[in-house]
Amino acid sequence: MQNTTSPEDAQTIIQNLRLNERPIGVFDSGIGGLTVVAALRHLLPSEGIFYVGDTARVPYGGKSQKTIERYSMEISQLLLSENAKMVIVACNTSSALALDHLRDRLAVPVLGVIQPGASAAVSTSKNKRIGVIGTRATIASKAYNQAIQAICLEAEVFDKECPLLVPLIEEGMLKDEITNMTLQRYLGPLLEKDIDTLVLGCTHYPLLRKAIARLVGPNITLVDSAHYCALSVREALLKQGVSNEGLSVGKLRVALTDATEGFLRVAEKELDLKIGEVELLGSYEN
Amino acid sequence: MQNTTSPEDAQTIIQNLRLNERPIGVFDSGIGGLTVVAALRHLLPSEGIFYVGDTARVPYGGKSQKTIERYSMEISQLLLSENAKMVIVACNTSSALALDHLRDRLAVPVLGVIQPGASAAVSTSKNKRIGVIGTRATIASKAYNQAIQAICLEAEVFDKECPLLVPLIEEGMLKDEITNMTLQRYLGPLLEKDIDTLVLGCTHYPLLRKAIARLVGPNITLVDSAHYCALSVREALLKQGVSNEGLSVGKLRVALTDATEGFLRVAEKELDLKIGEVELLGSYEN
Repeated sequence: MQNTTSPEDAQTIIQNLRLNERPIGVFDSGIGGLTVVAALRHLLPSEGIFYVGDTARVPYGGKSQKTIERYSMEISQLLLSENAKMVIVACNTSSALALDHLRDRLAVPVLGVIQPGASAAVSTSKNKRIGVIGTRATIASKAYNQAIQAICLEAEVFDKECPLLVPLIEEGMLKDEITNMTLQRYLGPLLEKDIDTLVLGCTHYPLLRKAIARLVGPNITLVDSAHYCALSVREALLKQGVSNEGLSVGKLRVALTDATEGFLRVAEKELDLKIGEVELLGSYEN
Repeated sequence: MQNTTSPEDAQTIIQNLRLNERPIGVFDSGIGGLTVVAALRHLLPSEGIFYVGDTARVPYGGKSQKTIERYSMEISQLLLSENAKMVIVACNTSSALALDHLRDRLAVPVLGVIQPGASAAVSTSKNKRIGVIGTRATIASKAYNQAIQAICLEAEVFDKECPLLVPLIEEGMLKDEITNMTLQRYLGPLLEKDIDTLVLGCTHYPLLRKAIARLVGPNITLVDSAHYCALSVREALLKQGVSNEGLSVGKLRVALTDATEGFLRVAEKELDLKIGEVELLGSYEN
């Protein structure tokens, strides 16, 4: 057989080349998803990223599934209108409640943070006693419990909703007596369950990683869903042959649906991200 | 001169009679405005009330003026579509940032919570050193400072944004060590300013009245903007001859833009309000 490239193959290669250069679309209800962006920048520095934070309607964590599905769909369409080659749901609440809704409706691959976090938790845990913390909506959805038990039926999951952590983080109170006391209140019951692994089931929480690590001690491993989400994005890009392996650093664009930058600067500093100019999205600007 | 009623007068009287029976429209970004509803129920028990809480987009307190104006206008239109004879902006953030916007565009009287709270603070204060606490957006707007100084030029206003209080209240943590520590952090600097009056510049805050009173002690008078708002509503209704003075208790309808009732039950209990069935607004239900 001759080693030739058919016209169809050539077409696919050209399309993929173009696909490569398209940005990865990432969204969150607000700014928390920048922890996923930071992880992606480390792992896939050549990829362009278009990030949208739905700050006009933040937070999603206390809202209903229908509302979260609608908001997630609207923001995903903004990402597609900027030619995103993939949609990363960098929000645990939306991953827990709207992922299937998006996958059924969008023409590009859709990745969330729950599945990678659940896999990592199962591989990390020795005694298969796993703690999960998240917003009220994420915890009520039982999405982590289901994802963990789908991988390892005998795993026991102990979950706890932590509704005050996002406001505390957004206030920049990362090293604060009030935050420590709140963490103690939330994590105390989990610590009594002999867990050896704790999933940070909200993309905001890695910003509290140090305070949480201090509180739970060295015998509990923290699983940062942002980090494992970035690993799963790399895997998906390679599998589909659409990763950008250029030598230049990819462009990072950050857009918000409302002009509220306060916490953005906290995140920028803590995550060591260079964000620069922030776009305000016209369709929501009114 | 004969004591007759002209056809025009009769028409006006009939129109006003119909107006009387129309409900008062009240809205807030969420559930906090129910403190205004509770005050209205005590003061004006015959009035029908239609309350809308924009729980699909709560909170407004950290968002921009444009977004707050747009949301306030949309919710006001929901009230008018239910025939409201008056719109009460039972949200300090929206009163501070969107009141003029609404007044310019709505065909019914629009009342907010800032003006009544500011007047009450000036009458209450002896030394004219007045503290004001509120959300980030309310405090940044300087609406209370301007309203207070418009009444009493020599009054000194000391303000403090308290962004964590709404989340703490919505968690029902009304008697809690974490809440007390947070209050101490926020109110400490104000207590050093020799204020004799403190305006609770957020409709959520009356739910923390006891904890705040304990902390500031008996020499500082708390001004509850919800209560004074209700007084100003009574005045406006009487002035315009559209108050409902029937003997039966007016109907209270509560509608939310998202199905998140958790905190509603906290408020219902604390405010001793009978809310019953909550409507979910179709246009936002999707």
